[in-house]
Amino acid sequence: MQALVFDGHLRFDPSHPDPTPQPAEALLAVRLAGICATDLEIARGYMGFRGIPGHEFVAKVLEGPPALKAKRVVAEINCVCRECDMCTAGLSTHCRRRTVVGILGRNGAFAEKLAVPAANCHPIPDTLPDEHAVFVEPVAAALQILRQVRIEPRTKVTLLGTGRLGLLIAQVIARTRCQLTCIGRNPRTLEILDRKGIRTQLLADAQPREDQDIVIDSTGSPEGLPLAARLVRPRGTIVLKTTCAAPITLDLAPIVINEVSIVGSRCGPFPEAIAALAREEIDVTPLITATLPLSQGVKAFEQAAQPQSIKVLLKTEV
Amino acid sequence: MQALVFDGHLRFDPSHPDPTPQPAEALLAVRLAGICATDLEIARGYMGFRGIPGHEFVAKVLEGPPALKAKRVVAEINCVCRECDMCTAGLSTHCRRRTVVGILGRNGAFAEKLAVPAANCHPIPDTLPDEHAVFVEPVAAALQILRQVRIEPRTKVTLLGTGRLGLLIAQVIARTRCQLTCIGRNPRTLEILDRKGIRTQLLADAQPREDQDIVIDSTGSPEGLPLAARLVRPRGTIVLKTTCAAPITLDLAPIVINEVSIVGSRCGPFPEAIAALAREEIDVTPLITATLPLSQGVKAFEQAAQPQSIKVLLKTEV
Repeated sequence: MQALVFDGHLRFDPSHPDPTPQPAEALLAVRLAGICATDLEIARGYMGFRGIPGHEFVAKVLEGPPALKAKRVVAEINCVCRECDMCTAGLSTHCRRRTVVGILGRNGAFAEKLAVPAANCHPIPDTLPDEHAVFVEPVAAALQILRQVRIEPRTKVTLLGTGRLGLLIAQVIARTRCQLTCIGRNPRTLEILDRKGIRTQLLADAQPREDQDIVIDSTGSPEGLPLAARLVRPRGTIVLKTTCAAPITLDLAPIVINEVSIVGSRCGPFPEAIAALAREEIDVTPLITATLPLSQGVKAFEQAAQPQSIKVLLKTEV
Repeated sequence: MQALVFDGHLRFDPSHPDPTPQPAEALLAVRLAGICATDLEIARGYMGFRGIPGHEFVAKVLEGPPALKAKRVVAEINCVCRECDMCTAGLSTHCRRRTVVGILGRNGAFAEKLAVPAANCHPIPDTLPDEHAVFVEPVAAALQILRQVRIEPRTKVTLLGTGRLGLLIAQVIARTRCQLTCIGRNPRTLEILDRKGIRTQLLADAQPREDQDIVIDSTGSPEGLPLAARLVRPRGTIVLKTTCAAPITLDLAPIVINEVSIVGSRCGPFPEAIAALAREEIDVTPLITATLPLSQGVKAFEQAAQPQSIKVLLKTEV
């Protein structure tokens, strides 16, 4: 099969071996996959990953249990043991022995086919086009924030970073009708939010006043957290959505003195994300910069890394 | 009056001007004061403080409202406006216009006399000796942890750092009967905890397994938080009690991936601390390394900075 492989550098392999589904796994034919910031970091060596990256995707079931037969599905990315202390404590996304699709010990979706546990698959409604369904994984990650912090209409929230994930987080948070400000570097991505009536501010104009109840860092930059620490109020909360490969330098004293909470946030609930996208509550169309065939995957990664790019999709030629 | 003054370097001033109490302030005669890690940092330039340091103390009221007349008191260190957004939101320890005794914009207790808001003073029981009462402020800071995180008998807690504050935190946390391990560098301070039946471990023997529900960092070292991140379980909580002047270097990825919470923690409840010390639930006697007269304050700071020192006290000669 065709596949995009990272083995120290990223290359297109026109004749990669097909995956062999293990017991309880489904074999999927990838229809469309999205390149996210984590993929770009992986292509720079993050996580020490080797193999086929790609974890945002929509696919069709080729082989699997009867309930999934020939269905169009999205799939959760954490493949878990159901036996370790985390799994039995109901924290299976943190399974001690997990593999993660396209990120940790398991091939991903930048290929014609992939195998994932059948239990990870969620059939999607016929009304949800591939171009929207491919955003289920990052929308779920955005929704996770609302499971970790309480956001009410009077809550002052600042979102730092209006890139791929930030534009989804902004829309998810705006649904709470809270007092939301989105701060970004790129006037073009801010415009997308402006048009939806979401308040935006250029990074250069930001005036940190330690007055925000919640600050969400989705900058993907080592500068995000230090700025968040100057925006958040005493006893406020910073939600970390940034995973950057490089270590950051941080002055802890204001965190301690202001008794700030910092909360790491990762994967979220797929059913809610599917429902929100099916109800068209999250508008993903303006986020799609380009759709390239899988065979042009290396070029697609280059394009995705450009500052003016938002989401670049890879389409499997059928 | 005699006073210890920091104006870029620490010096003893035998004839410092007496403080002039402002309206609603009490004038106190200091009896005994303790040197803590923050004082040592201040003497290295932390917070840019200039003046008389010292914020852990017990004193006698010289002038003040009738209810305080001639009482022995301890005093909360945050002097607040009661009008700003923080004060009106019930977060007065985070007052926007606060001064902090011996730390920020206000002289402290390494002197014969100091003035503090009368409302900050808490009379102490006659049965509580000065040598115990001088620990009310740090015991309150230790108790603050229990207001910020839920600790139950089955909770796995690791305390990093068994110095001045750590030895108090260990005793406060042990009262919850949780599964507590205290990790430190210094066999002598670990022995104090061993004798109380609190489980201890030398830092060199620590095996981080990402399995602790709560990790408390009171190391005062830039290495504390990175180690805490390897000890805490996914979705666990790190409580930060360390304020070190130097910025730290931190890999954020494990915080995000494991969805860890980091909570800064500062000042705590004085009435609870007075009660715990009066009931002798916290044993402070083994923590006192030396008691020196105020006139030997510079030497006392040097002694407090020695690794084998725990708490050095300064006594006012009356």
